[in-house]
Amino acid sequence: MTTTGPDPTAAHVDDFARLDLSRTARTGLPEAVYCQGKTVDQVEAITKRMIADGDDAVIATRLTAEQASRVDALEPVGVGAGIRTWRHRAPTGRRVAVVAAGTSDLPVADECRLTLTALGHEAISITDVGVAGLHRLTAALPEIEPAELIVAIAGMEGALPTVLAGLVRQPIIAVPTSAGYGTSLEGITALLGMLATCSPGITVVGIDNGFGAAYAGHRMLEMSRR
Amino acid sequence: MTTTGPDPTAAHVDDFARLDLSRTARTGLPEAVYCQGKTVDQVEAITKRMIADGDDAVIATRLTAEQASRVDALEPVGVGAGIRTWRHRAPTGRRVAVVAAGTSDLPVADECRLTLTALGHEAISITDVGVAGLHRLTAALPEIEPAELIVAIAGMEGALPTVLAGLVRQPIIAVPTSAGYGTSLEGITALLGMLATCSPGITVVGIDNGFGAAYAGHRMLEMSRR
Amino acid sequence: MTTTGPDPTAAHVDDFARLDLSRTARTGLPEAVYCQGKTVDQVEAITKRMIADGDDAVIATRLTAEQASRVDALEPVGVGAGIRTWRHRAPTGRRVAVVAAGTSDLPVADECRLTLTALGHEAISITDVGVAGLHRLTAALPEIEPAELIVAIAGMEGALPTVLAGLVRQPIIAVPTSAGYGTSLEGITALLGMLATCSPGITVVGIDNGFGAAYAGHRMLEMSRR
Amino acid sequence: MTTTGPDPTAAHVDDFARLDLSRTARTGLPEAVYCQGKTVDQVEAITKRMIADGDDAVIATRLTAEQASRVDALEPVGVGAGIRTWRHRAPTGRRVAVVAAGTSDLPVADECRLTLTALGHEAISITDVGVAGLHRLTAALPEIEPAELIVAIAGMEGALPTVLAGLVRQPIIAVPTSAGYGTSLEGITALLGMLATCSPGITVVGIDNGFGAAYAGHRMLEMSRR
Amino acid sequence: MTTTGPDPTAAHVDDFARLDLSRTARTGLPEAVYCQGKTVDQVEAITKRMIADGDDAVIATRLTAEQASRVDALEPVGVGAGIRTWRHRAPTGRRVAVVAAGTSDLPVADECRLTLTALGHEAISITDVGVAGLHRLTAALPEIEPAELIVAIAGMEGALPTVLAGLVRQPIIAVPTSAGYGTSLEGITALLGMLATCSPGITVVGIDNGFGAAYAGHRMLEMSRR
Amino acid sequence: MTTTGPDPTAAHVDDFARLDLSRTARTGLPEAVYCQGKTVDQVEAITKRMIADGDDAVIATRLTAEQASRVDALEPVGVGAGIRTWRHRAPTGRRVAVVAAGTSDLPVADECRLTLTALGHEAISITDVGVAGLHRLTAALPEIEPAELIVAIAGMEGALPTVLAGLVRQPIIAVPTSAGYGTSLEGITALLGMLATCSPGITVVGIDNGFGAAYAGHRMLEMSRR
Amino acid sequence: MTTTGPDPTAAHVDDFARLDLSRTARTGLPEAVYCQGKTVDQVEAITKRMIADGDDAVIATRLTAEQASRVDALEPVGVGAGIRTWRHRAPTGRRVAVVAAGTSDLPVADECRLTLTALGHEAISITDVGVAGLHRLTAALPEIEPAELIVAIAGMEGALPTVLAGLVRQPIIAVPTSAGYGTSLEGITALLGMLATCSPGITVVGIDNGFGAAYAGHRMLEMSRR
Amino acid sequence: MTTTGPDPTAAHVDDFARLDLSRTARTGLPEAVYCQGKTVDQVEAITKRMIADGDDAVIATRLTAEQASRVDALEPVGVGAGIRTWRHRAPTGRRVAVVAAGTSDLPVADECRLTLTALGHEAISITDVGVAGLHRLTAALPEIEPAELIVAIAGMEGALPTVLAGLVRQPIIAVPTSAGYGTSLEGITALLGMLATCSPGITVVGIDNGFGAAYAGHRMLEMSRR
Repeated sequence: MTTTGPDPTAAHVDDFARLDLSRTARTGLPEAVYCQGKTVDQVEAITKRMIADGDDAVIATRLTAEQASRVDALEPVGVGAGIRTWRHRAPTGRRVAVVAAGTSDLPVADECRLTLTALGHEAISITDVGVAGLHRLTAALPEIEPAELIVAIAGMEGALPTVLAGLVRQPIIAVPTSAGYGTSLEGITALLGMLATCSPGITVVGIDNGFGAAYAGHRMLEMSRR
Repeated sequence: MTTTGPDPTAAHVDDFARLDLSRTARTGLPEAVYCQGKTVDQVEAITKRMIADGDDAVIATRLTAEQASRVDALEPVGVGAGIRTWRHRAPTGRRVAVVAAGTSDLPVADECRLTLTALGHEAISITDVGVAGLHRLTAALPEIEPAELIVAIAGMEGALPTVLAGLVRQPIIAVPTSAGYGTSLEGITALLGMLATCSPGITVVGIDNGFGAAYAGHRMLEMSRR
Repeated sequence: MTTTGPDPTAAHVDDFARLDLSRTARTGLPEAVYCQGKTVDQVEAITKRMIADGDDAVIATRLTAEQASRVDALEPVGVGAGIRTWRHRAPTGRRVAVVAAGTSDLPVADECRLTLTALGHEAISITDVGVAGLHRLTAALPEIEPAELIVAIAGMEGALPTVLAGLVRQPIIAVPTSAGYGTSLEGITALLGMLATCSPGITVVGIDNGFGAAYAGHRMLEMSRR
Repeated sequence: MTTTGPDPTAAHVDDFARLDLSRTARTGLPEAVYCQGKTVDQVEAITKRMIADGDDAVIATRLTAEQASRVDALEPVGVGAGIRTWRHRAPTGRRVAVVAAGTSDLPVADECRLTLTALGHEAISITDVGVAGLHRLTAALPEIEPAELIVAIAGMEGALPTVLAGLVRQPIIAVPTSAGYGTSLEGITALLGMLATCSPGITVVGIDNGFGAAYAGHRMLEMSRR
Repeated sequence: MTTTGPDPTAAHVDDFARLDLSRTARTGLPEAVYCQGKTVDQVEAITKRMIADGDDAVIATRLTAEQASRVDALEPVGVGAGIRTWRHRAPTGRRVAVVAAGTSDLPVADECRLTLTALGHEAISITDVGVAGLHRLTAALPEIEPAELIVAIAGMEGALPTVLAGLVRQPIIAVPTSAGYGTSLEGITALLGMLATCSPGITVVGIDNGFGAAYAGHRMLEMSRR
Repeated sequence: MTTTGPDPTAAHVDDFARLDLSRTARTGLPEAVYCQGKTVDQVEAITKRMIADGDDAVIATRLTAEQASRVDALEPVGVGAGIRTWRHRAPTGRRVAVVAAGTSDLPVADECRLTLTALGHEAISITDVGVAGLHRLTAALPEIEPAELIVAIAGMEGALPTVLAGLVRQPIIAVPTSAGYGTSLEGITALLGMLATCSPGITVVGIDNGFGAAYAGHRMLEMSRR
Repeated sequence: MTTTGPDPTAAHVDDFARLDLSRTARTGLPEAVYCQGKTVDQVEAITKRMIADGDDAVIATRLTAEQASRVDALEPVGVGAGIRTWRHRAPTGRRVAVVAAGTSDLPVADECRLTLTALGHEAISITDVGVAGLHRLTAALPEIEPAELIVAIAGMEGALPTVLAGLVRQPIIAVPTSAGYGTSLEGITALLGMLATCSPGITVVGIDNGFGAAYAGHRMLEMSRR
Repeated sequence: MTTTGPDPTAAHVDDFARLDLSRTARTGLPEAVYCQGKTVDQVEAITKRMIADGDDAVIATRLTAEQASRVDALEPVGVGAGIRTWRHRAPTGRRVAVVAAGTSDLPVADECRLTLTALGHEAISITDVGVAGLHRLTAALPEIEPAELIVAIAGMEGALPTVLAGLVRQPIIAVPTSAGYGTSLEGITALLGMLATCSPGITVVGIDNGFGAAYAGHRMLEMSRR
């Protein structure tokens, strides 16, 4: 809903949010602040309370420039395109390769990498390895293979995870991005291609959802620690 | 149509609208001012006339900031995001729970709540009870259950009304919202999920249509008074 | 999935279904047997157990001809296109008008009418009142108006509930049907039209979902008894 | 394509357009200036040449505010939302009713009415006769019926032409508009509803295409003069 | 709804249909029997009654082979693919060109041509004039031009009416067909192409709707007789 | 392509397939026989050769009844709806919970469970735990929680994995199914709902792709063995 | 249109088709017989006449089994899945590689290969080189590279032409196929992926359109002979 | 992703791009700078390095006004709407006709023409030859026919390449554009029309992809030089 006007809820900052503070206990994943559609005041208030309450790994995503500038006063530890993080978890020593097909996919890669970092994992970024130049991808394999898990990010036709899945043994989380124009259909084309892949063994998250990929990756990494 | 230019109809404010002043008599529901696509002058003129004509429960929805600021001079009784109301009906003593999955759904909840209030009903707001943290929803059930009717508002995958419908006996009006990004498809995903629900007994209104949900709710509440 | 082959689950009829026998206690609505995608054996076994367990209002929907012929041996009380019912609830004395735009919508109307009947309500059928001949609709208003609730069923452009909603005060549950060809898009057109209606106060269920409309109607009727 | 930069064709105003000056001779309809995607300079140059060349009924449509303000210096005869006209044809004495469901549909109605006027026809505007208040439509029938042809314009569910077609004998050209939000899908819903109508005998033009409706109407009016 | 089972309405043939016998008086167009989704018994009963009641121009469309074979016993005057007609109106002397792009469009052309014939008009068929061989179309212009009205039928990309509209003065009713495979998308591609045409002045009916085109054509032809 | 006719390739069974026999070495996953669109002869020939070549874990999926009956002569070890397996890998001692919302999702669950079994994992089936009866799901949690990995299968609105993800710590692979009718849109609705989930940390595979879920699960299970 | 009934045009076999016998002279490409939607009699009559008229390269596509069996009596030179050819052109000595990702794409490859053969070109088939096993594709490059032109055929995610385009210099015509299920969306996914490719320099034809690819390839091959 | 905030990668301009400098050697086509989604700094840095590295034919596409103004300091040889080129290849003497249906398609034509020019080909522009005025197209044929290759660019219904393909022998690369409004669906309509064309032998690239058409054209032109 894009209409505006005085927001009568703004005066009741303390009332509008029911924080899910036990989420970490149940799922191993902290509640994050999804900022889209929230007012700058709401974002600041929720973030402040989460930092104060001592929750581990406070993460704010989908920040507008205005929202970001407000929470930057709260001294974030991690700073990326549209994302800020506080109170990172202790390092786990697990490594994830965040592989992006092109430079235009970097904001999504950023959101994924910083979320993984806040959860204590080591996330390495590998970019510009789209399948139009296979030698770039094969040249990057030595960087990719030591990782336990791969997040493969691509827009346009989204073929990167399909090709990767034929080359390596690791789990691959595919993230379609809205990069591209016209027939890319805001990421729908990449999404469909990843889901219909001829390389079985890939799983997919929503368009531009670098955050969701990181959370799913965390579940996989934790599985092997149990 | 987004093109612009001098609007030749602006000079004829008195001619452009055929108000449906008998709507309350026929349907029990007053005609409201749907402001999208209307000029600020048109909105003001129609609203003024409806207040003057003594219609009960004057409601203006989908106000832009500019339109809202103009009609705020007419001293509205109810003020919400994109909505203003005048001349509320007498209290009916009926209670409706307006339940929203997340903070991003609040503007739609606002539109619904204020419309119900203008029609004389008591609308209570319950927010941040998305199904990702079921305990928040079950904790809120004591607040929800005394209501005679539930409006369940959610974006993203829109599962809130589906889960609620398995827990309670009341009618549930589901409202999909355009909150979310990427694969949320501007509310289409939530809409389809609500319509295809595995919990039979839910009905659905259009995307972001908090106003329509309130009007439908009024019909249901009135049914039991006849 | 349309592939076939020996079904290894068929031998374990007793194991495949977790019946939700407390649904009536929680929601006022009995669990029904949704037969699509079930084998004939599964349908028969589940239906038998539900009749035996003494659940009130046993309802089997979306029966193929083959499934229907098998359960007809269980002596259903209600028989309609693709639906059978057993063990009806006691009459409630409430009346619902099931209004269908055309003869092609009758199977959906049937599913709705028989479900309402099994739940104890009086469902009257009114057919062939599409908006292409408004006088037929206005002529039928005296039949429709004594009902407390209206289920309006239409395919093609689906305008029937929109027009009705401007004429009466009752709640209107709109059911889009897949009747029509070409641009009717298997019911998508009627569905969208009902959701985008210019007559506020309508709620909608999924395409061809006469059963869901009846269940939603039951919730509304029960509301006023509390 | 939304990218920008210096436009190298701007210096060659005389070269970029191949005007179809014989169109009137072949089809009875003059070439019009469709301004979307053209630079302000291109719009001015083409319009000037068409006025100078003495073509009958010069019509410029889809003008942005900036384009409109430039061609207003050319002293248009007809001025509407996004449309300007020059050199109208001689009056034909034929009457067309341009019927719009709501105030939000007025820009499209404007485009249609002014185009008809430039072609010499008498176009009368009837607004706010949406089917949610049938009595408004039936009250307007005496205004509509003397017309030889009806253009019926509606957004949202687009049921107006369907209902009209059951009441009158004239040809009805249905124009879906992008008025409405959410489930209106930018006019797709109204378009589909008009095409899938249960009232046979309606024809439809593209979304927001008031101009196309006027041109089609002209062909129909001319048919009976041959 | 494709499920089946005993149809309890079959015994009440006289009750299921509310014939709109005054439609001719109001709109100039007789009610027709749309047979899709009706049982063979229903089709026969309705058709018989309409013939008996002396309605002018009885038309049954979308007949399956089984339905057709039943009503063929009622001695139809007009026989086409999926259509039968009885009791034609007196000849009007008006001529319509029914132009089809390819042989695969013939069933739709048939439905249109026979409906026009039943209404008293002279409908001439011109086939295989798709725009891939423009000379075939231009060679056919002498056959087309004497007609007062053109119905242009095409599947695939649906460009025929667009090209025709640049060559002639008559009204053109475009009918998209579901002929073609793959990217033809069951007629959606042709439909969209006709609506988005660069040749203003075309109107469009639903996919495969030859009947609707004929009814719309009748309204246009009648206009000039008033 | 549904057209038929003599297939000239049938005589060259040995030439048409380039088996990817090193896939296990590269990715840890054996090439499987995807049978859709293959002739019965092709299916038999490929399967035979793969068994003969000693590849581990031979899996044939999407078998029609006719194809299945042919390869049943090759004495499969695992037999499910549309799937047959030979030469299972040695047991790994890893446990996966294959959770299905309803009985209609069983064929997809079958495909997943048997593929996991052929790869050496223990796959347990839990069915009929749709979110319309949350108590069934919570009652099943003790069965689900000992598993290291969860495959959550659902049609209709597909909310099962969303609700599960808020309750447990394991990785969840969501599989949308085409179960349901009308607004379920052949699985598109469930797919979109799973991708747009408000429970971060879910990954998704294509519609009805139980096989792909099993392969992805294998990658995750193997990760923790490295 | 799927309805049936006696086809009144069947008696006039000589009248229904306007053959475009000058197409070869204008475009270098003979008119072909597209058999979908034609009766068996129509197919036979048109094919016979084209053979008799001495047109070069008579090609009938999209034959059903019944149509194929009828024209097999006319002794075709080329026989493939759904295609028959007669009167091939003289060999040109040009070579085209028809590369298919999987066995399921073979019917489309067949249609393409036989059409090229009828036009005089040498078409070699290379199959089962999907990008899930890149080494199969790179192993096949020595077979592919001597060809002047590549037709790359793939269903599912359709990445084959994208990867090929990064490896070779030849023109690549991409053909999406409807092979695959669920999220393959009948070929839409492969189509979109090919159009949105990150490898510039690919062109695409419609879904399953092996014939169109061959015709387009012929134009390219002829270009270099001029 | 439209969110913003400080971009932490901006400081590492040298690290973010893996240039594919061997692309020309492999494919005959240089890597180009696709600027959408890149920062102004990134665009400038990549472009500078490509010019410095001596790659032939440096091409930057999809430049915003701000990006364009920055790289204009690098003294481009070719300047068009959203495109700049440096270091053109030596002239090949090959001629391509870039044919655009309307003035609104000029930016796409520009992108195509300048890319071809940078690759050494002679690209001639022919505009305003839409099929609504066939005589304009036939009048332009003498300009078109000397070219070896045709790029046909059109929005709206996109029929231009279909009609052209029936008139000439050259390869035709069709480019759908997003020109048009409403039912043009941002170019989807033109795209579908071109793919479903009744004129076999056309190939298509993505919406607004003038650059891709030029690259594909280059492959075709080079084929005949081998």
